[in-house]
Amino acid sequence: MEVGFIGIGAMGVGMVRNLRKAGHKVMIWNRTAASLTELAAEGAEVASSAAACARNEVVISMLADDAAVEEVMLTPAFMDALGPQTIHVSMATISAALAERMTVEHLARGRTYVSAPVFGRPPAAAAAQLFVVAAGDPAALARCEPLFQAMGQRTFIVGDRPSAANVLKISGNFMLAAMMETLGEAFALTRKHGIEPAQFLDVLTSTIFPAPVYKIYGGLIAADNYEPAGFKLRLGLKDVRLAQEAADAAMVPMPLAGLLHDRYMTAIVKGYGDFDWAGIARLSAEAAGLPPQR
Amino acid sequence: MEVGFIGIGAMGVGMVRNLRKAGHKVMIWNRTAASLTELAAEGAEVASSAAACARNEVVISMLADDAAVEEVMLTPAFMDALGPQTIHVSMATISAALAERMTVEHLARGRTYVSAPVFGRPPAAAAAQLFVVAAGDPAALARCEPLFQAMGQRTFIVGDRPSAANVLKISGNFMLAAMMETLGEAFALTRKHGIEPAQFLDVLTSTIFPAPVYKIYGGLIAADNYEPAGFKLRLGLKDVRLAQEAADAAMVPMPLAGLLHDRYMTAIVKGYGDFDWAGIARLSAEAAGLPPQR
Amino acid sequence: MEVGFIGIGAMGVGMVRNLRKAGHKVMIWNRTAASLTELAAEGAEVASSAAACARNEVVISMLADDAAVEEVMLTPAFMDALGPQTIHVSMATISAALAERMTVEHLARGRTYVSAPVFGRPPAAAAAQLFVVAAGDPAALARCEPLFQAMGQRTFIVGDRPSAANVLKISGNFMLAAMMETLGEAFALTRKHGIEPAQFLDVLTSTIFPAPVYKIYGGLIAADNYEPAGFKLRLGLKDVRLAQEAADAAMVPMPLAGLLHDRYMTAIVKGYGDFDWAGIARLSAEAAGLPPQR
Amino acid sequence: MEVGFIGIGAMGVGMVRNLRKAGHKVMIWNRTAASLTELAAEGAEVASSAAACARNEVVISMLADDAAVEEVMLTPAFMDALGPQTIHVSMATISAALAERMTVEHLARGRTYVSAPVFGRPPAAAAAQLFVVAAGDPAALARCEPLFQAMGQRTFIVGDRPSAANVLKISGNFMLAAMMETLGEAFALTRKHGIEPAQFLDVLTSTIFPAPVYKIYGGLIAADNYEPAGFKLRLGLKDVRLAQEAADAAMVPMPLAGLLHDRYMTAIVKGYGDFDWAGIARLSAEAAGLPPQR
Repeated sequence: MEVGFIGIGAMGVGMVRNLRKAGHKVMIWNRTAASLTELAAEGAEVASSAAACARNEVVISMLADDAAVEEVMLTPAFMDALGPQTIHVSMATISAALAERMTVEHLARGRTYVSAPVFGRPPAAAAAQLFVVAAGDPAALARCEPLFQAMGQRTFIVGDRPSAANVLKISGNFMLAAMMETLGEAFALTRKHGIEPAQFLDVLTSTIFPAPVYKIYGGLIAADNYEPAGFKLRLGLKDVRLAQEAADAAMVPMPLAGLLHDRYMTAIVKGYGDFDWAGIARLSAEAAGLPPQR
Repeated sequence: MEVGFIGIGAMGVGMVRNLRKAGHKVMIWNRTAASLTELAAEGAEVASSAAACARNEVVISMLADDAAVEEVMLTPAFMDALGPQTIHVSMATISAALAERMTVEHLARGRTYVSAPVFGRPPAAAAAQLFVVAAGDPAALARCEPLFQAMGQRTFIVGDRPSAANVLKISGNFMLAAMMETLGEAFALTRKHGIEPAQFLDVLTSTIFPAPVYKIYGGLIAADNYEPAGFKLRLGLKDVRLAQEAADAAMVPMPLAGLLHDRYMTAIVKGYGDFDWAGIARLSAEAAGLPPQR
Repeated sequence: MEVGFIGIGAMGVGMVRNLRKAGHKVMIWNRTAASLTELAAEGAEVASSAAACARNEVVISMLADDAAVEEVMLTPAFMDALGPQTIHVSMATISAALAERMTVEHLARGRTYVSAPVFGRPPAAAAAQLFVVAAGDPAALARCEPLFQAMGQRTFIVGDRPSAANVLKISGNFMLAAMMETLGEAFALTRKHGIEPAQFLDVLTSTIFPAPVYKIYGGLIAADNYEPAGFKLRLGLKDVRLAQEAADAAMVPMPLAGLLHDRYMTAIVKGYGDFDWAGIARLSAEAAGLPPQR
Repeated sequence: MEVGFIGIGAMGVGMVRNLRKAGHKVMIWNRTAASLTELAAEGAEVASSAAACARNEVVISMLADDAAVEEVMLTPAFMDALGPQTIHVSMATISAALAERMTVEHLARGRTYVSAPVFGRPPAAAAAQLFVVAAGDPAALARCEPLFQAMGQRTFIVGDRPSAANVLKISGNFMLAAMMETLGEAFALTRKHGIEPAQFLDVLTSTIFPAPVYKIYGGLIAADNYEPAGFKLRLGLKDVRLAQEAADAAMVPMPLAGLLHDRYMTAIVKGYGDFDWAGIARLSAEAAGLPPQR
């Protein structure tokens, strides 16, 4: 298929490579040109504008946040460029509210918008091991499935309202943030009682919590080592806010989300915004009077 | 080995059977005699008192809570009955403070106390699949290892201070309680946005949270079905309090533990004390105005 | 002076009356005409539009929330109608962000915007006993002072940045919301220990908390009687959100504001949105299993 | 009357002076003798032991905490020394649970125990301006009333169960702790938005919160000056814990108390334990990235 791809960051690079590997023709665009060089050298076509990408069969966007989506795509230039058969697939973690607005804006022009955010970090993107959570018009999703298969290991369809996929993705990230706060408090408690972090982690991940996320993030916390970040702490705050906004819109009290909001904001003010988001655990260690481990 | 076993509840039954299956001679005692009948019929010797159990090579206790331990074992009758070579192994989830007090009381009499709480529910106890977290005198632990092997799938040694094992176990239970609150809020958010609980659970456990505890407890929440309880919600409050006490003693602020304390207490006042502790999720659903699912 | 007054609600009625009593000529407008009848009968001139009000020396707005302000005044019709010497005084509790946007929009057209929110409920508005918290251009504030004096008992000037007055007002309302949650928990604790609410209130307000707000709101809680509302609980949530937004914009973690957000939202979902905002105390009583008092 | 007075600290000194000024004969005792010198020089009789004090018509205790009460008075020596007509009046802020235990211990010996904790700081004790909150046997309270009048400005009787007075006092202190956290967050928010702390304080205490406690504690926060402490922050944690224990015993969820517990503990770990308890506000300022003000 002919695919436009907007947003070439740590995730996008791997996704584009896997699309091309699967035989798709990909036209790329990014707000800053620097990140395009590598893929261009590999043969990807560089578009002159986001709007140019919109003229393909499918245009995929993988931008950083709501503001970027609004700036790049909620413009007449982009919206008018979308072809009558073009499907716009937003794969970034954006707000449910923006997904709904995008749905309406596309519908109003007779165009098709689907949400398909992913679980997985850059290495998973590179290895075509992402999990794709997709929602939108069934026919459109069926047309996109070969693309999802090229980028991910499995696709989950969560209905025909695009924003449902965003809510699900946001909820998953809320759960990860909660897991990290939980780990942070538990490590502080055990460390202050004289238990080695590595040993605590070993017991946890060998018994009740064998999931890779506990191993990965628990490992960062046990080592008290949050740089370089796989996913930056300041983006963790962004994602907690997305959960709170979705909760606010639907009147769902989430006291734990409120707690996470304060913790992530406190960490950022302390200067930990560029830590991996597991660095939230540093707050618990510090509050307990534990020295940095390294 | 000759083993005394005090506390024959849902866990104790399976543990005694597995000890006997491995060829150990087990003398049993319980505060209420009814639960002894079955094991007695299978050939276990019924002791006339807790003190009688204390005269074996090893006496294992698996009592409900701190109060039970104090009532049954912090008595002159029991303590004086402990033989010079007897090792007392407490496998219940009791407080770190009581473990320290027990350690001192035993030391003062020249006796040996070790803590060896377990992760696993009654089916795991029956199947000898418990995880044993043990701490105490290394020689004593080595002597007990054949018993641990008879009851569990793996033993973790966390040092020579018995209470460390209790802190670790308590921290694990705190993490489970936090996971359930997290699931409760996430399910409420997704449900109110129209996502089917079963589908949300499927995505979660197929992607970022493949651990069995997410499947088991998430399954209860998705089904909104908390009875009969595998582990009662009122015991969840007990365990959160144990974490808070350990945190208080060591000056470790744990805001999430504070939140869990309120949630579990609120649920008990509502009449949910005999629900499975995953029933804490009912609070989030109700606060969001979602009706019971069945 | 010639004054336009936009937003004739429970507060506005008294404010207009006091302006007229002081000899000012007041032209009134409201989104729904019904509330204008009484003042019109008393001799106030009814404007044909909000824009017509904007042509006076001073135009005062006292609208319900941000959305109302945006709808009525952030329009070309209104903005273009503002005379070159007209001062626009917003006295409602709106967001700091909107106050900043209003400031910019007025400046861009060479017009003057000042914020002057008030502390006081409708009886205080009727009695000209409001406290006015004003910020903006000093010359403009000086010109408005006779109007503030006509409506209030005292004016506080908090600098020349209009939004500072909004932040101060929002902070005051946050503190009131926190006071009510505090009262709610304290009443639940004492009531469940057998202390009569009226007696607890008497001790509190005779000793450490003699302020009228403790007497008024504590009295509602002691009587467990929240209707009719002096200030609706759903507006309490609005004001907590304003505090959180101002905190978010400035990166100020406010864990207590987060807790209040959850409590007010929970109360609204329960159907208490039209209670007086002291009704938040009902949550603490219910969570403690206390029956309604009447 | 002949009065024994146990516990001569910052509060006790003033209370004894006022009792003597009113013509009562006071015998004093303290765990450390140093603090007795001054009162002895003024003519107060120094007892040889706490038990000696127990032989008076009334014995008043004003000890630091539960542990001190247990150590000094829950002993056979003290309890056996209480005369048949002696009334034991505990005026310290101790737990409701200990008050109940004291009540039972006295009753079991045919003696009379009343609780009469006070609101007021050392200057109020010196000026006989304390508020006395008393509960217990009505006849005993009537006999004590002249003593209360000598020490305080007003007595509140809250029934015949002594612990009710403790619960009320503890609830009052919880409310003060909550007020300080509220002030801390509000000052951080307004300061970061450019509002002078002194100005914010002036507006607050001139409008909605004219109570002296807001002026006193708000003044400390506005000045960011917490030493010397009027009431130490570490005692604030003690009092929050007393509220939580009373809440736990009666099954009253108090989320705000949980938040305060974490805040006070965090402040103590940071080294602020000897600050005035208003120093909790430093946490909010720091979390917002605001520098110390002096």
